[in-house]
Order: sequence, then C-alpha cells, then structure tokens
Amino acid sequence: MANAKLAIIYYSSTGTNYTMARWAEEAAKEAGAEVKVLKAPETAPHEAISSNPAWKKHYEETKDVPNVTLHDLEWADAFIFSTPTRYGSMPAQMRQFLDTTGGLWFNGKLVNKVVSGMSSAQNPHGGQEATILNLYTTMMHWGAIIASPGYTDPVTFSSGGNPYGTSVTVDQDGNMLEDIEEAVKHQTRRTLQITEWVKQGSQ
Amino acid sequence: MANAKLAIIYYSSTGTNYTMARWAEEAAKEAGAEVKVLKAPETAPHEAISSNPAWKKHYEETKDVPNVTLHDLEWADAFIFSTPTRYGSMPAQMRQFLDTTGGLWFNGKLVNKVVSGMSSAQNPHGGQEATILNLYTTMMHWGAIIASPGYTDPVTFSSGGNPYGTSVTVDQDGNMLEDIEEAVKHQTRRTLQITEWVKQGSQ
Amino acid sequence: MANAKLAIIYYSSTGTNYTMARWAEEAAKEAGAEVKVLKAPETAPHEAISSNPAWKKHYEETKDVPNVTLHDLEWADAFIFSTPTRYGSMPAQMRQFLDTTGGLWFNGKLVNKVVSGMSSAQNPHGGQEATILNLYTTMMHWGAIIASPGYTDPVTFSSGGNPYGTSVTVDQDGNMLEDIEEAVKHQTRRTLQITEWVKQGSQ
Amino acid sequence: MANAKLAIIYYSSTGTNYTMARWAEEAAKEAGAEVKVLKAPETAPHEAISSNPAWKKHYEETKDVPNVTLHDLEWADAFIFSTPTRYGSMPAQMRQFLDTTGGLWFNGKLVNKVVSGMSSAQNPHGGQEATILNLYTTMMHWGAIIASPGYTDPVTFSSGGNPYGTSVTVDQDGNMLEDIEEAVKHQTRRTLQITEWVKQGSQ
Repeated sequence: MANAKLAIIYYSSTGTNYTMARWAEEAAKEAGAEVKVLKAPETAPHEAISSNPAWKKHYEETKDVPNVTLHDLEWADAFIFSTPTRYGSMPAQMRQFLDTTGGLWFNGKLVNKVVSGMSSAQNPHGGQEATILNLYTTMMHWGAIIASPGYTDPVTFSSGGNPYGTSVTVDQDGNMLEDIEEAVKHQTRRTLQITEWVKQGSQ
Repeated sequence: MANAKLAIIYYSSTGTNYTMARWAEEAAKEAGAEVKVLKAPETAPHEAISSNPAWKKHYEETKDVPNVTLHDLEWADAFIFSTPTRYGSMPAQMRQFLDTTGGLWFNGKLVNKVVSGMSSAQNPHGGQEATILNLYTTMMHWGAIIASPGYTDPVTFSSGGNPYGTSVTVDQDGNMLEDIEEAVKHQTRRTLQITEWVKQGSQ
Repeated sequence: MANAKLAIIYYSSTGTNYTMARWAEEAAKEAGAEVKVLKAPETAPHEAISSNPAWKKHYEETKDVPNVTLHDLEWADAFIFSTPTRYGSMPAQMRQFLDTTGGLWFNGKLVNKVVSGMSSAQNPHGGQEATILNLYTTMMHWGAIIASPGYTDPVTFSSGGNPYGTSVTVDQDGNMLEDIEEAVKHQTRRTLQITEWVKQGSQ
Repeated sequence: MANAKLAIIYYSSTGTNYTMARWAEEAAKEAGAEVKVLKAPETAPHEAISSNPAWKKHYEETKDVPNVTLHDLEWADAFIFSTPTRYGSMPAQMRQFLDTTGGLWFNGKLVNKVVSGMSSAQNPHGGQEATILNLYTTMMHWGAIIASPGYTDPVTFSSGGNPYGTSVTVDQDGNMLEDIEEAVKHQTRRTLQITEWVKQGSQ
C-alpha cells in the first residue's frame, strides 16, 4: 500500500499553531506518511500585520511555507487543521480558503478524507472546544470521516484533556501554558492510523 | 473477515425513530452485517406514557424490542443512533443510558467505534441539526470515528439535505413529511462500509 | 427614551439575505427604531464574482449599500445578522469583518448589545441551525445578550420553525421555499423590544 | 419594582456544582434578589449512588435541598443552571427534568426568562464549553434571553476565561483547580442586572 498522504493545514499569526503543525509533521514523517505543511493564505492587510511586531515577525519567518491549494485537498488522504480561536470560531483566513472549495465539494472530491483538528486560545476555556467543534461541523458537509482523539491515550489527560482535538492556552507573550507536544503527536499518529485503514479498505 | 456488527440504538415515543431504526436494520441485513435493533430504556413514569394514547400504543407495540445494554456497546463495531429532538438535544432516556457507560469508557472499550446519527423534530428547522451534532460531541469523548453522511449520495438532497445525519419533520399526527427511507439506507450502508475498513484494518 | 438603534448586518452573494435584511429594516422602521442596513465587505476576487451572473448582478445592484464599519458596531444598541451558510458556518466575508473587532472588544464596547441571527441554505437541513448557533457562540465572546426568537409567535411554526433564528431554504434559482417575511418581522420586533428594555434599564 | 426572582438550578453528584450554586445564591441575596436553590431530581438507582462514597455523602448532605419543579420555572424571572459535563452534555438528571416542561413551553410560560449557565469537568478542556453551549441551545427553544458572562469583568480572565459561563476543572479528589468564586458571583450579578432590565421593561 502506498503511504498515507497527510495535509497539515494551519493558520497562525504569531506562531503557536505553526509550532503545532510542525510537531504533527514530525510525528507523521516518523510514521512514514507523505506530509505537506500548508498555511491558509493571509488575507489581512499589510498594515494590520505590520502594526503587530510578533505577527510581522512570524509572517516573515514563514514566507516560504506554501499556501494551501485546492490541489492539496484533492491530493491528501487526511487533513489535520490547526488554528487559533477567533471568538469561538476559526479565523477568517481559514474560512476564506474553505469557502473556495465549492467545486471540489460539488464533484465529490472531498469525500472520505480523514480529519482531525487542533486549536489554541488565550484563556483555558476561551473557545478551544467551540473552534474545533465548528471545524468538524464543516467537515461533515464534506463527507469527511472525523477522527478526534477522544481519550485514546493517557497523554490526553496530561495535556489539557480536550477530546475534540489537542488545544493549548497561550499567554500574552506567546508561551504555551500546557505541554502538548506529545498530545499533538499522538493525535497525528491516530489520524494516520485511521487513514491507513480507510485507504487500504477503499482501494 | 467476520461481518461488521452494528447496534442500531434508538429512542422513540410514538414510532418515528423506531421506523427509521427498522429501515436501517433492513439495509444493514442486506449488506450482510450482524444487526441488533435496541431501544434506550424508558424512564418516563407510567402515568406520563398512559396519558398520551400514541405514546402508550407505541410503548406496548415495542415491548419486545430489547433494551440496549453495556454489553451491546462492547459487542458492536458500529452504532447508529436515532432519536427525536428535545429542545435541540437528545431525550433524557438516551442520555440516561449514555451516562451509565463510564466503566466502558474508562477501560477504553468505546474507542474506534464507527458512529452516525439520525433525528426527527416537529418543525423543519426544529433542532434536527443541533441534536445530531450534540450526539457527535458525546461520541468524540468516546474516541469514536464519526461517519456522518455528508452529501455522499444524491439521495441526501431529495430527503432534506442534512449532512450531519438523516433527519425528518413529523407532523402532529405522526406523519413524516420528507421521504427519507432511502437516505436512512444510504447512511446505513455508508456507516457499514467505513466500519468494515476500520475493522479489517485494525485486526 | 431615545429610540433603539439597530444595525442589520448581512452578507449576500445572490440576494436572499439582502431581502431578509430589507424585511427586517421595514419592521424596525415601523417600530420606530433608527436602522442601518449594512453589508459585510466583499472579499472575493473580482473574477469569482464575475464568473457567476447572479452574484455579479446582485453585487452591482447593492453597490450603494454601505459596508459595515467598527463605528456602526459601537453606534448600535442591537444587531441582527443575516448570512447564508457555508458548510454550517458563516461566510468568510462576515468572519473577516468580525475578526477586525478586537479593539472594540478589548475596550468593552461590544458588551450588552442585543443580538439575533438569520440564515439560509440550499437544503432544508443544510446548516441553517448550525450557522446561527455558531454566530451566537461568537456573540457570547462579545458579552452580547442573545435574543433568539424561540417559539414566541405562531409565525415561527408556519415559517420553518427555527427557534434559533429565522432561516430559509433557497432553490437553485434563488427562490425562497418557505414564506418567512412575517417571521423575519416578528424576530425584528422581538429583538427591538428586548433592546428597549435593556437600553432603558441601563441608562 | 418587585425584586427579581432567581432560580438556581443545579445537578451535582459530589458537590462541585452545589458549591457553585451556593456562591451564586450568596451573590444574588446580596443583590437583593429573591432566590431559590433547587436541584434536578436524582434519577440514578440507589445502588449506583451507594457504590460511590463521595456521591453517597453528597446525596445525603443535600437531602433537604428542594427538587426543582415546574412551578419554580414559572415563578422565576431568571435561571442560572449549574451542572457537570457528561461527555460534553448535561447529565441525564437535568435533561430528564427539562424534558418534563412541554406543557409550560406549549403555553408560552418559559418565554423571556433570562438565563446563564455554569459547568465543571475533570479536564481543563473536557467539555465545559460544549456543555454550556448545549444548555443555551435548549434555552433558545424556550424563547429565553441568554446572558452569558462574556468578558464583561476582569475576573473572567483570572478564573479560566470561559465566556459562555463560569466553569471549573475538578481533580480526582473533588478539588476545584481554578478559583472561580468571584466569577460565579459576577455572572450572578450580571444575570440579575439584565433580569431587572427585562422585568422592569416588560411590566
């Protein structure tokens, strides 16, 4: 069987979800998957970015990370999405990209993709759950197969215990307040395992 | 490979979700699955049931349908839940049963079950979506794999178009206002197909 | 007491939610409110709009409707949002605008606004509920007071019965399949009534 | 104006939400409201309770707390609900009670009640958000006015930052891991303030 193809699609203004995406990539490569780390195209005006030094810095540091395309969605067997919360929902940058997928959707090209999601917020109960659940609502429209981590590994308990997807609290200085690296990696391996079952079965 | 084992778990006071459960059973048997149709134990007091002739009639007609047990959850590879909405959520009868599963959950016995849900309400936008989404939130705590139908078959469009799960509007006399039989059967086949991939892969 | 100030904020590509916004405006004016009908700024590329004749037509017809601004949010005592569903969530155009409100939010300028929402979709159970519920999740971050219609008037039952907010099914040709004009107007009057209580009490 | 009447309706197996309910009561009395603290009737079998010493102890200690009744719902101008999460939803005990309110609902007796909710879970991201959001979905069916705390006071930030309602993480020994007393009291005062506006305006 060919290896599972995983698209890790993130949006990050100051780096948290980018770091999470890279941890997912690391675990996915170790597991033998073909992996792409892709960012949702930035849609904020240049002045907004420039007015926030941390955002500007991260924006420039990740200029070489490719923007996600419709082709990537078609290519992948599985998606891991990672985004901060914006008032309990995903940022407009990610929704903007999702809103361009109508053609793929109409032609059934998004069916049976295996999906899981991750998020971050500034407060421990600041929308992490709501943001991931909102992602899954969208994925159900696609006919995706949803592989949230649940409590399938003890690491979930030590990393915040979010059964919908790994999530983290980020303080004002951009520091993650929970140790979630292993939870991200577990979620990635679980997503890939289910992807392999689906891929092998559906071939 | 052994056949997929499907538990169709429903609650019904006047028969709609029971009918939906039986349609699911029919499709599942045709697909070669081992199937059990199981009801959430009734918790309403006898007087409440007796005061509503339609409820009383259905209660007596389905006396022989077995109550779902923890053993059934462990036995099954997949679950299809079917319940009416009660104010945008599942009825207490179903939640009561779900609340007794802590021991199975703690021992990881609910992980990787493939799940989809169905619902009904008296108004077209009367909580059908919210009820199924609430079920899936619970299932994510179990580590389930969620297989909502999405728009994976044209029948979704002609039966109300609910991508989260088949749902129906029921009038005051108990008549279903959309023709959902084929949508229920499609959802069942899809749930079983994914279950077979998971079962074969994980063996 | 000064009249309640209502901002009706909509996004519409082909006109359904624009029509709903105008019905809300009509009811609000009759009730003596100060009203602004405002659109979420279009963010789609010109080619996307031009490639869809119905979208292009509506885009040009509504060129004079003002784009919503942060100043409008501060001005208003109440908001009625009206948007189509995009995979069970609001369109990126609306989220893009919402994402720019961080400054107002940080300074507590969005607290105690009275809010209700409306939506549309191509299928009867196609995300209308999920989209409105997602809006309210966001509004809770703002400290808004949520005034969904519930079943506070018989018109709810005859117009689709969505207790979260008025919603409608739209066919391929852009025709609304339920008669929701009176439901929109009832929702508007109810939102304003609660707004007046809040405004008078908090002065 | 007569004082606002507040029903604090909770379910608690081992005491966390009972403590939260008492904190809410304290703040409400200080604010001059008429207050009732009421529990959702226990529906678990006696053996289940007896098999868990902490549950049994709390059950016996709170024997004198009155069970909530339909009459209490009609009496109150506002409700504060407080429940633990069960897999991202409220416990069956609370849903069982909510499911008995059909008669009040049908007669419009639940309209314009002001509502807010609180919750607890064993993990920081363990369903606290989802549980409160699910409560509000139900309240929208009632025609309630939802007064979630948002970020209307700095105490929200120091107590977990849940904008939907105060929530807390509880460890295996029943200890609350965040200091939420002041957040509960702020939420109570805010709920009452809005209630007074609604009550005065609607008289």
